[in-house]
Amino acid sequence: MSFIQVDKDSDFPLQNLPYGVFSTKEEPRHRLGVAIGDQILDLSVIKHLFNGPALAKHQHVFDQPTLNAFMGLGRAAWTEARAFLQKLLSASEPALRDNAELRRRLHLPVGYHGRASSVVVSGTPIRRPVGQMKPDNEKPPVFDACKRLDIELEMAFFVGPGNKYGEPIPISRAQEHIFGMVLMNDWSARDIQKWEYVPLGPFLSKSFGTTISPWVVTMEALMPFVLPNPVQDPKPLPYLQDKEPYTFDIKLFVAIKGEGMSMPTTICRSNFKHMYWTMKQQLAHHSINGCNLSPGDLLASGTISGPEPESFGSMLELSWNGTKEIPLGSGQTRKFLQDGDEIILTGYCQGNGFRVGFGQCSGKILPALSDP
Amino acid sequence: MSFIQVDKDSDFPLQNLPYGVFSTKEEPRHRLGVAIGDQILDLSVIKHLFNGPALAKHQHVFDQPTLNAFMGLGRAAWTEARAFLQKLLSASEPALRDNAELRRRLHLPVGYHGRASSVVVSGTPIRRPVGQMKPDNEKPPVFDACKRLDIELEMAFFVGPGNKYGEPIPISRAQEHIFGMVLMNDWSARDIQKWEYVPLGPFLSKSFGTTISPWVVTMEALMPFVLPNPVQDPKPLPYLQDKEPYTFDIKLFVAIKGEGMSMPTTICRSNFKHMYWTMKQQLAHHSINGCNLSPGDLLASGTISGPEPESFGSMLELSWNGTKEIPLGSGQTRKFLQDGDEIILTGYCQGNGFRVGFGQCSGKILPALSDP
Repeated sequence: MSFIQVDKDSDFPLQNLPYGVFSTKEEPRHRLGVAIGDQILDLSVIKHLFNGPALAKHQHVFDQPTLNAFMGLGRAAWTEARAFLQKLLSASEPALRDNAELRRRLHLPVGYHGRASSVVVSGTPIRRPVGQMKPDNEKPPVFDACKRLDIELEMAFFVGPGNKYGEPIPISRAQEHIFGMVLMNDWSARDIQKWEYVPLGPFLSKSFGTTISPWVVTMEALMPFVLPNPVQDPKPLPYLQDKEPYTFDIKLFVAIKGEGMSMPTTICRSNFKHMYWTMKQQLAHHSINGCNLSPGDLLASGTISGPEPESFGSMLELSWNGTKEIPLGSGQTRKFLQDGDEIILTGYCQGNGFRVGFGQCSGKILPALSDP
Repeated sequence: MSFIQVDKDSDFPLQNLPYGVFSTKEEPRHRLGVAIGDQILDLSVIKHLFNGPALAKHQHVFDQPTLNAFMGLGRAAWTEARAFLQKLLSASEPALRDNAELRRRLHLPVGYHGRASSVVVSGTPIRRPVGQMKPDNEKPPVFDACKRLDIELEMAFFVGPGNKYGEPIPISRAQEHIFGMVLMNDWSARDIQKWEYVPLGPFLSKSFGTTISPWVVTMEALMPFVLPNPVQDPKPLPYLQDKEPYTFDIKLFVAIKGEGMSMPTTICRSNFKHMYWTMKQQLAHHSINGCNLSPGDLLASGTISGPEPESFGSMLELSWNGTKEIPLGSGQTRKFLQDGDEIILTGYCQGNGFRVGFGQCSGKILPALSDP
């Protein structure tokens, strides 16, 4: 229990404590924070309180505009920070509870991730892309606005400490390099994708925008919800074999709110546990050739679809490749996204009387530029 | 003519003036420099001399560890810097010629680019990657060291000013965003590639290393060597149409020096003019969906193969997919790379009595890790 009041359906109780970057109108400087209920603890203000052996000499990592330096310190630092923050925020701890000056800084956030290029934070509008596509197999390609704009329900994890160039991360140590997770919507232009993806893979069909949720939920907050790994058949090669459970019971939801709809309609209920490969396997695979990873690198899961039709994580699947309408209520249906549609991804682990959740990962579709 | 003595076969005469990042044993701090002959002009030392309208307020860009800030200023700044540097280094200009303190800093470089992850500068050894491959179609995949390690002769350009998220760069303005070029060896593990690349494209078969030459040759130095664009049939869609010539006559060479060989053997003679698409077309295409580019982004050309067999830009092509030995002299032959092989890419534009060249883009193959 925290002295900060946290609703039992809140994504951000004392058991979660996700990290993020925020700013306020009054102070637009980007600062690091931890979400607790509907408030943010500003880490730059309390950095001098991190006095444990792993952090005392690295308090400056809490006074930077990105999480990369903190993530790069590694697990001992993460564990120490979490233990300290849980103590600081617990109902029995007077340090912060009774310190009016420090508490004043716990105001409502606009979270924000300072990633370059087209990874954007929840709430960023997504403009319908234009590009080349080939709707008629018998005719030349055309230039047009995307007609089959889609979502992909994904999650992603941030790399903490990286590896040296040429030195793979063995799966036995992969956990030390995984800092925490976010929700991700990997927006996809299916018609552009179909025309461009052979043989070099998706390019412009994905690069127009990727939305992530604003708070990084740490692996420590998620470990109570770990599940046995899926049985993998065929058996993976030795560099991908791992007996430690590293699959997670994270309930995931996709909702659409079209223009004129009063409420979003949930179109997909999935779970992160459906992933075939674990994040440790992803990381070991990614670095096996010596490729060097760096703090802040973001590795996504791919679409998280379960076995039941209602758990399909993209409209391509939900609409059976555009052959079937997805009912939204209010008499509306969709095969793919329309301008003005807002897509909302949510996800959480259900604890006993609390949730460890991810907040929202949302984006609204703007019309294509008429003259790009 | 510069007061610095420059050999007529040097890649770096007054007509070139490529930019790079360097450090010295005595001063390991990364600094920006311009290559002239076999010397480097340290831009951090002379930054206060950039007093033109585009640079006077931005002298700090010459005192940073990367070129990104300078590249981000745009073409007016690039042109002003070039004109000033040519004047400063010309035989008739006394400012630098007679200034012993400034000239003392023109010492021999070890150039170096501060790019993250596995883009490495010329001279960095490349370790043979390990990974999954499927040499026998009838059997399961195996884990092994790459057996078909290859090169790709490429060039790449650096983006200067970027574009805002959601706002494509029209081809008519693409030139304003292209700062300069380097040589690139896009090392490729063909056996890993063959097994992994369907349907999402190459991944671990490329990410173990990409070597670039250390000096960024500016587009201004290259413009005297521009050629008419190739005739494109079918005619490109309007967003890719451009009448301005933007193809370049850059002679390119690939040489191999195996262990025990006294001299490298040239195995490929190609030319950048063989590229079908121009860099302006690449840039317009890359951003047409609204994807935002940033200063320092590096866009590569793909393999530069000409029509004649000796101009093929990869060993895959030169050895006809491993069916034919490539003769190296000294009785040695290759189909793909052996441990200890050093690959040297060079390239230059031939002027009248001078060259605008790129220096070397080289790397030597280390044996695979026995226990990755």
